[in-house]
Amino acid sequence: MSFEIHSRDLSARIGQVTTKNGVFETPTLLPVINPNVQLISPKEMMDEFGCEALITNAYIIKKTFEEEAVEKGLHDFLGFPKSVMTDSGAYQLLIYGKEVQLSNEEMIRYQEKIGSDIATILDVPTGWRVTRQYAEFTVNETFKRAKELAKIKSRSDIAWVGPVQGGSYLDLVAESAKKMRKLPFQIHALGSPTPVMEQYLFSTLVDMIVTAKLNLPSERPLHLFGAGHPFMFALAVALGCDLFDSAAYAIFAREGRYMTETGTARLNELEYLPCPCPICSRTSPEGLLAAGRMERQRLLARHNLYVCFAEIKRVKQAITEGRLWEHLAIRARAHPSLYSAAKQLSKYSRFFEENNPVTKSSGIFFFDSLDLSRPEVVHYKERLTERYAPPKTAKALLLLPQTKTKPYHKSWEHQEALRKVQHELGNKLSKILHACTYAAPFGVVPDELDEVYPLSQHETASPLDRETVDHVANQVSDYIARNREHYRKVVLVENTEAWGKEITSACKRVCKKFSIPLLTVGQE
Amino acid sequence: MSFEIHSRDLSARIGQVTTKNGVFETPTLLPVINPNVQLISPKEMMDEFGCEALITNAYIIKKTFEEEAVEKGLHDFLGFPKSVMTDSGAYQLLIYGKEVQLSNEEMIRYQEKIGSDIATILDVPTGWRVTRQYAEFTVNETFKRAKELAKIKSRSDIAWVGPVQGGSYLDLVAESAKKMRKLPFQIHALGSPTPVMEQYLFSTLVDMIVTAKLNLPSERPLHLFGAGHPFMFALAVALGCDLFDSAAYAIFAREGRYMTETGTARLNELEYLPCPCPICSRTSPEGLLAAGRMERQRLLARHNLYVCFAEIKRVKQAITEGRLWEHLAIRARAHPSLYSAAKQLSKYSRFFEENNPVTKSSGIFFFDSLDLSRPEVVHYKERLTERYAPPKTAKALLLLPQTKTKPYHKSWEHQEALRKVQHELGNKLSKILHACTYAAPFGVVPDELDEVYPLSQHETASPLDRETVDHVANQVSDYIARNREHYRKVVLVENTEAWGKEITSACKRVCKKFSIPLLTVGQE
Repeated sequence: MSFEIHSRDLSARIGQVTTKNGVFETPTLLPVINPNVQLISPKEMMDEFGCEALITNAYIIKKTFEEEAVEKGLHDFLGFPKSVMTDSGAYQLLIYGKEVQLSNEEMIRYQEKIGSDIATILDVPTGWRVTRQYAEFTVNETFKRAKELAKIKSRSDIAWVGPVQGGSYLDLVAESAKKMRKLPFQIHALGSPTPVMEQYLFSTLVDMIVTAKLNLPSERPLHLFGAGHPFMFALAVALGCDLFDSAAYAIFAREGRYMTETGTARLNELEYLPCPCPICSRTSPEGLLAAGRMERQRLLARHNLYVCFAEIKRVKQAITEGRLWEHLAIRARAHPSLYSAAKQLSKYSRFFEENNPVTKSSGIFFFDSLDLSRPEVVHYKERLTERYAPPKTAKALLLLPQTKTKPYHKSWEHQEALRKVQHELGNKLSKILHACTYAAPFGVVPDELDEVYPLSQHETASPLDRETVDHVANQVSDYIARNREHYRKVVLVENTEAWGKEITSACKRVCKKFSIPLLTVGQE
Repeated sequence: MSFEIHSRDLSARIGQVTTKNGVFETPTLLPVINPNVQLISPKEMMDEFGCEALITNAYIIKKTFEEEAVEKGLHDFLGFPKSVMTDSGAYQLLIYGKEVQLSNEEMIRYQEKIGSDIATILDVPTGWRVTRQYAEFTVNETFKRAKELAKIKSRSDIAWVGPVQGGSYLDLVAESAKKMRKLPFQIHALGSPTPVMEQYLFSTLVDMIVTAKLNLPSERPLHLFGAGHPFMFALAVALGCDLFDSAAYAIFAREGRYMTETGTARLNELEYLPCPCPICSRTSPEGLLAAGRMERQRLLARHNLYVCFAEIKRVKQAITEGRLWEHLAIRARAHPSLYSAAKQLSKYSRFFEENNPVTKSSGIFFFDSLDLSRPEVVHYKERLTERYAPPKTAKALLLLPQTKTKPYHKSWEHQEALRKVQHELGNKLSKILHACTYAAPFGVVPDELDEVYPLSQHETASPLDRETVDHVANQVSDYIARNREHYRKVVLVENTEAWGKEITSACKRVCKKFSIPLLTVGQE
């Protein structure tokens, strides 16, 4: 198996996986196919949805169709000639609690016999709210079984998945990842315990994913097990998840539940079908309710899949444009738990920043303090702090308020302000004026830098929220402090309508502290 | 014509318009049909999109097909047996600048002859960036022509639209609306000048719509001319617009532009088609670019219409659930200009509150300070201020931090805190304790009220932003001040992790001011 990365944004990547049976792009959703009963057949997945890869359960197949699947081979058995991933029974163990009646060795051999393209060892999922002792056991036992793989496997053309355990014990997740990475797996997986998705514990999920990603080789794709709802794809993909599986499309359909990009509705609570898919544009809630039960479930399952696949495409298009952050933030407003998780991303700015491309094809949008966590903001702040020194001739710092027109230095407001200040200060001081803009979200933007992406390629909403104003005021203060040997004077042009008095207060404090003369000028 | 209102949320309403040729639900988008050239025919509108009403231009029809349209009648001429609205040439006047070669009287008579279901007088649109003198002229001339209608019309079964003018001069918009409302129009319309939509001047648009709505009879539907992009439907509908027209679906298609719920993309910049509609789920950007020019334009036009109609359905479903605010806020993050317009809605809290249902079927979400403008928050604040008095037995105010569990008084945190405080204060004071919760976004929530909708039916994201914390602190302060004759003591249970020291500071200030003993207790 090979995995090539084509595009990046935040810690997301668009990649291409090549298995022995085909090629598919990531991020992607692998629909779960239950070998026993299917609302949508694998052939329909391929023909109607253009599905290039799906996932099924080797344990269920072995229990019910053992010989038949071996004789036909998995692909003929399913009627799906493209890439098939198999899960090994770990889920059954977790959910149904009973001992899986098979060993790791048997499951490995069986997946080889039926010819899975991507296969999974029989790991021991940690689950949720378990004792630390048990969690440690699952980490160690999973690692033990992972090590067995090398001795048992006899084929070299199947891609093996190394599952990372640990549940909510982040140190154990890290340990599990560090262990698993030493083995030659092509793909890794992280179990997202069922309550995490069901109870919307997204802040926990973020911590788990980042912990795993920080300790796994980034060139291996990461599969997030059990996370199949479109409203969190953007978040998970942004953190570096490449593969998802979903049985939810079918389970929800059976339960009369209708997926949207912002959550799940009950069909019997819908007055309208808020979706343009081929199902929803041809019928109504009444139409669906009037259909026979089986037909209704099939229609709902298809709608659910259309929504899932469309969201995958949206996320990929966003990555292509360098707009995944914007999209993630839009999705964050689907539910307070998602929003809280997005707010937590400030903890992981560095994590995003490491992978994020420095230049993108689109401009960026800044709305409110949630966006202060974006890597572009963090990146600029660090570069200005670590790598920037004002020009030697610059002896007086002139701070001008941000303008809508960009680059800032070309705006008429700046040219006016510059003229006015030069007039007031006189010729001598004018020659040594260093004009900089104070702007949200970037802080201090020296004129000579203001065409570097994205300093001219962004739009900021107004009014600014308090956290943003405080952030910029702190940046101004830090900039003056850091360059206090440089500037003999600071001239601040105020814009109290947009900024209040925060910038002025910050300048007063820092200039007083370092005894730098400060002149404040009201903007006319 | 009749207009019945069925559901409400904010200032939006789901209604039913009955014309002489059919019934259709609002809010709705009327696709613009150009009689000369159509990417999608009226019949396809009906069959493929379930379109119940469309709009065409009587001036163009008269110029090119005068006799034919009269002989066949408008509906047979178009091949559309359902409701048809006609515009009168005012748009041509505005855009192409030339004098329309017809008079108001001729256009009125012609629309009667061809049998429009909804017809428009030949108004004089104000446009944008015009002199006040010209704007006043357009208001007066439009009113003059509106008054002529009664003398000219000979049919009683056509619904007439009374257009409101004034452009960006809000006082003239108000004046125009006040004049037009006196005449027996069934529908009113507001022109949104082209630059408003093209330059995303949504804050201005909000002001114009609210000004018109405040001065028009709310039982008459309002048509917002020239506003046909899905990403702003939620905002316009929330403010009370019922009808939209869109030529954009076709114009964009001809220009290779692809609509989404968050903006517009150029087809040649798309790597993926981020949409589940029947077009996009069957092809790719390459597929569309490889198609013949005419075919591509038709496919794009159909995609654009699917997106528009799906958004209308989303908005209607949101109204049904009482979730239009949440949806509007999600859409606000599509572009900084939309977001700024949404922030401006704080000016119009009262406007929303007047129409907003007091109880809704769903819980509400609170994310950040944008949501402080929601009518539920404003409504509760006013009721608590104007209609609430603490129980007579309540002599000591106990302020407890909000809990995730609702109703607050049933949470274990509250029961614990109550126990602890009672223990500290002793029996006598415990009997007169009045437990209240300080919560975002509602402020102070007395225990005996905390099951009233939506005090138990909401979820709040965390952490709270500064504006929200300040808002709650102010509410706490106001509550204590307002009820200072009532309480002999205030006991504050802190939660500095969630709230910082703001609540404590606010309590200290107000208790000091009114000499009320204050006891602060740390939450364990």
